[in-house]
Amino acid sequence: MVVELISVGTELLLGNIVNTNTQYLAEKCALLGLSMYHQVTVGDNRERLSEALETALKRSDVVILTGGLGPTEDDLTKEVCAEVMGFSLMEDSHTKERIKEYFKNSIYKDIPDNNWKQALVPQGAAVLDNHNGTAPGLILEKDGKAAILLPGPPNELKPLFRDQVFPYLQKLQPEVIRSQMIKICGHGESQVENKLLDLIDGQSNPTIATYAKTAEVHLRVTAKASSDEEAKSLLKPVVKEIKNRFGNDVYTTKEEETLEMAVVRLLKKYELTVTTAESCTGGLIAGRLVNVPGASEVFREGFITYSNKAKRKHLDVSKGTLKKYGAVSEQTAKEMAIGGIFAADSDVCIAVTGIAGPDSDGEKPVGLVYMACYMKDKVSVEEYHFKGNREKIREQSVVKALDLLRRSILKNYHS
Amino acid sequence: MVVELISVGTELLLGNIVNTNTQYLAEKCALLGLSMYHQVTVGDNRERLSEALETALKRSDVVILTGGLGPTEDDLTKEVCAEVMGFSLMEDSHTKERIKEYFKNSIYKDIPDNNWKQALVPQGAAVLDNHNGTAPGLILEKDGKAAILLPGPPNELKPLFRDQVFPYLQKLQPEVIRSQMIKICGHGESQVENKLLDLIDGQSNPTIATYAKTAEVHLRVTAKASSDEEAKSLLKPVVKEIKNRFGNDVYTTKEEETLEMAVVRLLKKYELTVTTAESCTGGLIAGRLVNVPGASEVFREGFITYSNKAKRKHLDVSKGTLKKYGAVSEQTAKEMAIGGIFAADSDVCIAVTGIAGPDSDGEKPVGLVYMACYMKDKVSVEEYHFKGNREKIREQSVVKALDLLRRSILKNYHS
Repeated sequence: MVVELISVGTELLLGNIVNTNTQYLAEKCALLGLSMYHQVTVGDNRERLSEALETALKRSDVVILTGGLGPTEDDLTKEVCAEVMGFSLMEDSHTKERIKEYFKNSIYKDIPDNNWKQALVPQGAAVLDNHNGTAPGLILEKDGKAAILLPGPPNELKPLFRDQVFPYLQKLQPEVIRSQMIKICGHGESQVENKLLDLIDGQSNPTIATYAKTAEVHLRVTAKASSDEEAKSLLKPVVKEIKNRFGNDVYTTKEEETLEMAVVRLLKKYELTVTTAESCTGGLIAGRLVNVPGASEVFREGFITYSNKAKRKHLDVSKGTLKKYGAVSEQTAKEMAIGGIFAADSDVCIAVTGIAGPDSDGEKPVGLVYMACYMKDKVSVEEYHFKGNREKIREQSVVKALDLLRRSILKNYHS
Repeated sequence: MVVELISVGTELLLGNIVNTNTQYLAEKCALLGLSMYHQVTVGDNRERLSEALETALKRSDVVILTGGLGPTEDDLTKEVCAEVMGFSLMEDSHTKERIKEYFKNSIYKDIPDNNWKQALVPQGAAVLDNHNGTAPGLILEKDGKAAILLPGPPNELKPLFRDQVFPYLQKLQPEVIRSQMIKICGHGESQVENKLLDLIDGQSNPTIATYAKTAEVHLRVTAKASSDEEAKSLLKPVVKEIKNRFGNDVYTTKEEETLEMAVVRLLKKYELTVTTAESCTGGLIAGRLVNVPGASEVFREGFITYSNKAKRKHLDVSKGTLKKYGAVSEQTAKEMAIGGIFAADSDVCIAVTGIAGPDSDGEKPVGLVYMACYMKDKVSVEEYHFKGNREKIREQSVVKALDLLRRSILKNYHS
């Protein structure tokens, strides 16, 4: 089964926005075991869209078109698809009611006239209700081929795809595809691959794919089978083996769980409060923790101590330490972590101090970062030499600090 | 002049990465006044890449191909282009020397054998030195058409494009294209368009394009002319008129300057130090300020006071205020800003408190955010009702807070 993506929108051709829909859809199609050989972007242009669709329908089984379903004159994806595939447009009373309903809850009092255009659907098409906008998704089937039309805004496209298109595509596949995510911190991509070389080399079903993220590696193990049970039983031993090899470096096996979510989950589990003492990361570690809804249970306050004076004043780092070892040193990181615990009266403190660049302090290199985690009267310190620009160095520092925090909790409670 | 983009890489078809190169190149081509009607992605596959290139060369004047220039067997963009366009490959001694040089400075001692493949170039092609990798860029010209081959990694592609391809494309254009960026905070996109309706409606040269960003709007004014002088003189009155209409809401007219850079520039100019007192934004405002190299001159410390207790302890917010008005209130925001000034001994303090959701506190709605800026014995407070999820609410809060800080400085020093 071959799927092709057509993104429609002049704003993409002008580079006004990054096309994140394509990545989202491509990843999900790969997850379903569907083949994809082409991704195409055209503007809101009748002739070129027709041509792209005709070409796609010749070489692929399913064509997913995104964008161009809006209410304006420019939007013509639905019209072009109906024309190319030989469908006529008619008003859909259900969609019309939904549009009315949508505007009832909106800040607009009157429904703009051109919105009624969105109630027209190709006769015989499956209409997919859009709970976040006025343009429904549509599936047009003809001669063993299908065109799936989805609205362009990601907050409309994603739920529509997840809830209605994914199951549709799943049914088209003769096999059941199941996959399991494994997220790892503490190894580079090639290290992860080396540790799994025997599994990867011998793989056919399930397969193992690696995805490099900033200071993280995500693994997806995917199995094909004739039943859900069979797929699960194919996955189980491989996932278990990978988890064994990486131990505590696996921070989650949940698709949607981020590193900060895993950290907050552990803090809640062991009823710990955490504080942050940040220098070069300047608040970004706290920012990540606060990403997690309900973070207030475990995080109450944090310190951004960018200057030496602030490190002394708020975290009680000693003048002597700063003078002898400098602000970017193992000793300062340690004292920041200890000081944070006392200043915030929390159970754990994660502290980071480093040189993010672009200029070094003359003595120490750009990319040198120390981080310390203090809990239960014990402090762990780590030294990193990160590569990249200021932004990259800070990003990596944040991930490694969250992971040090996570590992410190596990060390104290899992041994 | 019509340009087409072909992205090459199976990782794009699998959705492993977002294709940001396409947005970058599309934006730059639009800036040059070049037309773009198609963007295509294919995998590392000889047959499909050949076909995509042949199609592109028929319908476009310039084809920019990205990716597939690496040293492995999979990488075949160069080989396919040479074949399709009738070039033979030969070793380029200059490129060979550069590869040797590159590995001399790398952590690898030996040069992997397959890297010599990257020294082969199509005979007669222009070789573009790559200072960040081993694959050079290439320009192949034939029969009035050109194929431009660029490496896929953005940190290699961008400098190559900026320094060597942009000037090449500029020369192909008979007209000179000049554009001027204007970045605005404090208005939505439709508000900005309404205020410029007469200019936008009557526009032909220069043209005005709007780009909506999180709580910002960017305008690009673009003029075409036969000379640089003429283009500049076409731009000048329009840019002046727009700046007049938006006044202090224009935070920069520099292409590369971000909002936090503009804020740090003003703080430096007036020799002010700033501190941050953050609740729902949890360190992200400080994080943005610290993005700016040299931020340490103006930012020394910040407070993340997520709990009421932390607001009292570090910022001296009164128990009575918290009890009477709640943590998310004008009064608390004010006291946080005042408290921050004293706690950090800084000239300015920006404070934010709000409900980012997903749950409300029972009384106040999700999205309600108060921010206060204190400087020169005066405090300005603003109340916002943001829409969207937790992340969106926090992102908008950060931008609006940075902008409040910026406007407060201007109010004190520009009137």
